[in-house]
Amino acid sequence: MPGESRGSSSPGSSQHSAGSRATSTVRAAASAPRRSPQVWKFGGREKVVTQIVETVGKLLQTKAQLETEEGKKSFVPKTPKGTQDFSPKQMAIREKVFSTIINCFKRHGAEVIDTPVFELTETLTGKYGEDSKLIYDLKDQGGELLSLRYDLTVPFARYLAMNKITNIKRYHIAKVYRRDNPVMTRGRYREFCQCDFDIAGQCDPMIPDAECLKIIHEILSALQLGNFLIKVNDRRILSGVFAACGVPESKLQAACSTVDKLNKMTWEDVKNEMVGEKGLAPEAADHIGEYVQLRGGLDLIEQLLQDPRLSQNKLAGEGLRDMKLLFEYLMLFGIVDKISFDLSLARGLNYYTGVIYEAVLIQQQNDHVKELVDVGSVVGGGRYDGLVGMFDSKKKKVPCVGFSIGIERIFSIMNCKAEASKEKIRTTETQVLVAAPQKHFLAARMKLISELWDAGIKAEMLYRENPKLLKQLHYCEDTGIPLAAIIGEQELKDGVVKLRDVATRQEVDIPRHKLLEEIRRRLEP
Amino acid sequence: MPGESRGSSSPGSSQHSAGSRATSTVRAAASAPRRSPQVWKFGGREKVVTQIVETVGKLLQTKAQLETEEGKKSFVPKTPKGTQDFSPKQMAIREKVFSTIINCFKRHGAEVIDTPVFELTETLTGKYGEDSKLIYDLKDQGGELLSLRYDLTVPFARYLAMNKITNIKRYHIAKVYRRDNPVMTRGRYREFCQCDFDIAGQCDPMIPDAECLKIIHEILSALQLGNFLIKVNDRRILSGVFAACGVPESKLQAACSTVDKLNKMTWEDVKNEMVGEKGLAPEAADHIGEYVQLRGGLDLIEQLLQDPRLSQNKLAGEGLRDMKLLFEYLMLFGIVDKISFDLSLARGLNYYTGVIYEAVLIQQQNDHVKELVDVGSVVGGGRYDGLVGMFDSKKKKVPCVGFSIGIERIFSIMNCKAEASKEKIRTTETQVLVAAPQKHFLAARMKLISELWDAGIKAEMLYRENPKLLKQLHYCEDTGIPLAAIIGEQELKDGVVKLRDVATRQEVDIPRHKLLEEIRRRLEP
Repeated sequence: MPGESRGSSSPGSSQHSAGSRATSTVRAAASAPRRSPQVWKFGGREKVVTQIVETVGKLLQTKAQLETEEGKKSFVPKTPKGTQDFSPKQMAIREKVFSTIINCFKRHGAEVIDTPVFELTETLTGKYGEDSKLIYDLKDQGGELLSLRYDLTVPFARYLAMNKITNIKRYHIAKVYRRDNPVMTRGRYREFCQCDFDIAGQCDPMIPDAECLKIIHEILSALQLGNFLIKVNDRRILSGVFAACGVPESKLQAACSTVDKLNKMTWEDVKNEMVGEKGLAPEAADHIGEYVQLRGGLDLIEQLLQDPRLSQNKLAGEGLRDMKLLFEYLMLFGIVDKISFDLSLARGLNYYTGVIYEAVLIQQQNDHVKELVDVGSVVGGGRYDGLVGMFDSKKKKVPCVGFSIGIERIFSIMNCKAEASKEKIRTTETQVLVAAPQKHFLAARMKLISELWDAGIKAEMLYRENPKLLKQLHYCEDTGIPLAAIIGEQELKDGVVKLRDVATRQEVDIPRHKLLEEIRRRLEP
Repeated sequence: MPGESRGSSSPGSSQHSAGSRATSTVRAAASAPRRSPQVWKFGGREKVVTQIVETVGKLLQTKAQLETEEGKKSFVPKTPKGTQDFSPKQMAIREKVFSTIINCFKRHGAEVIDTPVFELTETLTGKYGEDSKLIYDLKDQGGELLSLRYDLTVPFARYLAMNKITNIKRYHIAKVYRRDNPVMTRGRYREFCQCDFDIAGQCDPMIPDAECLKIIHEILSALQLGNFLIKVNDRRILSGVFAACGVPESKLQAACSTVDKLNKMTWEDVKNEMVGEKGLAPEAADHIGEYVQLRGGLDLIEQLLQDPRLSQNKLAGEGLRDMKLLFEYLMLFGIVDKISFDLSLARGLNYYTGVIYEAVLIQQQNDHVKELVDVGSVVGGGRYDGLVGMFDSKKKKVPCVGFSIGIERIFSIMNCKAEASKEKIRTTETQVLVAAPQKHFLAARMKLISELWDAGIKAEMLYRENPKLLKQLHYCEDTGIPLAAIIGEQELKDGVVKLRDVATRQEVDIPRHKLLEEIRRRLEP
């Protein structure tokens, strides 16, 4: 199983077919002569080198042209735009990430559910605001109108309402679909996986909210992605700020989405957008600026609770008092040092009603903390107390809080790390290769491997009647199989199996009836 | 977390909304009076009973009408036709099945891959013959034309060709989509999960084919679904039989699909279809009948190898010699008693080129073996040496053999079993509930649970400031949590935690610094 061919489908290149990748390599080579002659001027050989380079260049251009023409004729197999295959090597990394996340969800007592990949279009209608244009619809082939799910939150709310569930703590790991402009090098795809955790049900304030932040903290720590920060805000505080600054209700959502850009734009630019595009008064924008550039902890909350403009606003007051409670709980959970109360955090989705949060990866550079903007937020979530009610005929509300982990961004980082470290990643768990040193031992190998399988031992053999011993041993080394069980004429006569430690190359004859026991002993951690 | 509301989304009913389910119950009750009065004639009370029944019936009809009208006004949340949600209880069963299957695949050294849920429509074109009409297309929203995958085999072949992989043993577990007429009580859905295992690459004859059958045998044994039988045939033998019986090449596929119905129809009916609908000569049909009703083992293979009509046919000869080899290997693997060489097995899909097989569940009734027709085959597969070449610009072939497990049918059976046994299935893995007997101990509970989580112990607490102790203990009993760690005034003063065994109700005070150790000791298997 050649490693290179599978390794080539790494993120960012996997959506191109093998054919188009080959062509672009040729193109790069063909364009080389244009700048090379200047670089390669070394003495009298200059002219010869230039000639060779030019000739090679022409040949490569011809080859590239021929290949392009050939490509037009035959269908080049590829994955759809913005989607990717995962090779065994990538899957090995992904499964490690998933298992870390699932273990944490289970540690917090979550159940798991699953929902269909498509929903009735009606179920998704009116839930995503502007982003609705990114929903994938299925073709009307008669029957219901269907769309691919856009996230896991709306299907979760639909599931709760449909089954009249008022109390559940569940996780759901599945793919979601957005007809977005993919930026695959940054882990942005049209098909991508989300890991969602949500707590639904009537609870006392901020207790489940605090647990969500604790879980995010545990997962990001366990994944060892480097330093991170969890930004926290509250939709109620945000609308209190806007109201206090004289922004009319009608412009609230627009102002919110502009504020959300503060991590990518300067305040000047944000202000210009507010005044120019969104039509806010310059004084209102200045007032807003004073607030949304604030970030801190308990001290900032206390300060804002004293602020006469804010404390008069009912929603803002509630939000601030809850934020204080949240910080107290986060202190008890011992994670408050990674939390930043950040008034610029707004989050795009419409359905949030209270606390909102977002986790970002950061880099410490000479006392400066820099957000890894390239990656963006890796976790996002908040409280959405109204969504389930939208699906209930009696509009019965079920309060919910939860978050979604953007696994593709995390996976991009893990994948780069794995490639940089050059550490060999095993893609199988095979423990023993059953091998033979001579010809005509297929039957003996088959009988032996069958015994191993039936005893629960992970075993392989080469699918050849008479494979060369060297080839069998190379297979162990290539794929990381630790043991080889070798059976030949002498072994069969003596009633033994030669057990070889692939790493040390040591071989010992083991009586056949003790083989299972010995293999298990050797494989003990 | 009320069990009933979640348990209600069982297969076969889950695609109906809670609302429509209630309505149909009402309708059933409302229609009862029409036949009930005849049944309930017992003495003088007859008239009174009839009156009551009629009145109740009218009331229920009115209620049903009102509900239907109400339903028209508001959107009733539901899943699309032929799809289903999986509740935590169902997921617990599914995950057990998946883990059995994955363990077996890993025991045989398989890697894992993943591919997108949709493919370019072009990728699926011309792969499924008549069944192509069942493919779900996505709406043309600009850009590429896309379709939901119909199986995992074609995407696998596309993946191999695209990445020039000539050698791999992989599994892939994912959902596939068919716009079929769903029969959900029998585990037939429009969205369903397949577990595929395939071996691609140049191998010596029948070695990987035999391993596939060994794996199917291991999985069906491990799942404890009852007795099963693996039917085996070869496309080459089948076409040899048809050729020998004078069926023209052009009618081969049609004759094949009729033969495939032999497990549901008598030979008479199959013959009538061959002659009537498919236009075969009656004598040809009779000849075919002599062959396709044959089933057996090595003796049958030997008999057919002696058959002059078959042995003259090159393909049939090859197929029979390979079948003999396969049976020799299956004998070495010790599974030949569950294998039946069955000449009626044809399988629908076009892409098979050699050995084909299908596993069915059977019931032993007074020495009669009866196939569980309701369930149908639970595994199907075979050799397809031409499929990868269809995606390669140079038509380079990669020989493949593999199978697909129909997990929904297996899950239907497991689900029924679980419901019948009334065995309590845990849907979480929580080990400890952190509880308090008095008010104002939220902070103490939070600090304690945080310690447990950080030590990797699965723990929950109720999301209330001051929950009643009884409510906390009931939660343990309802959800199967084995231990409760109770912290109150006295415990805090004494520096201990009261550890309660939920089953025995025994409580012991454990010094705080020994708590983790004691919990781990108690949880040891």
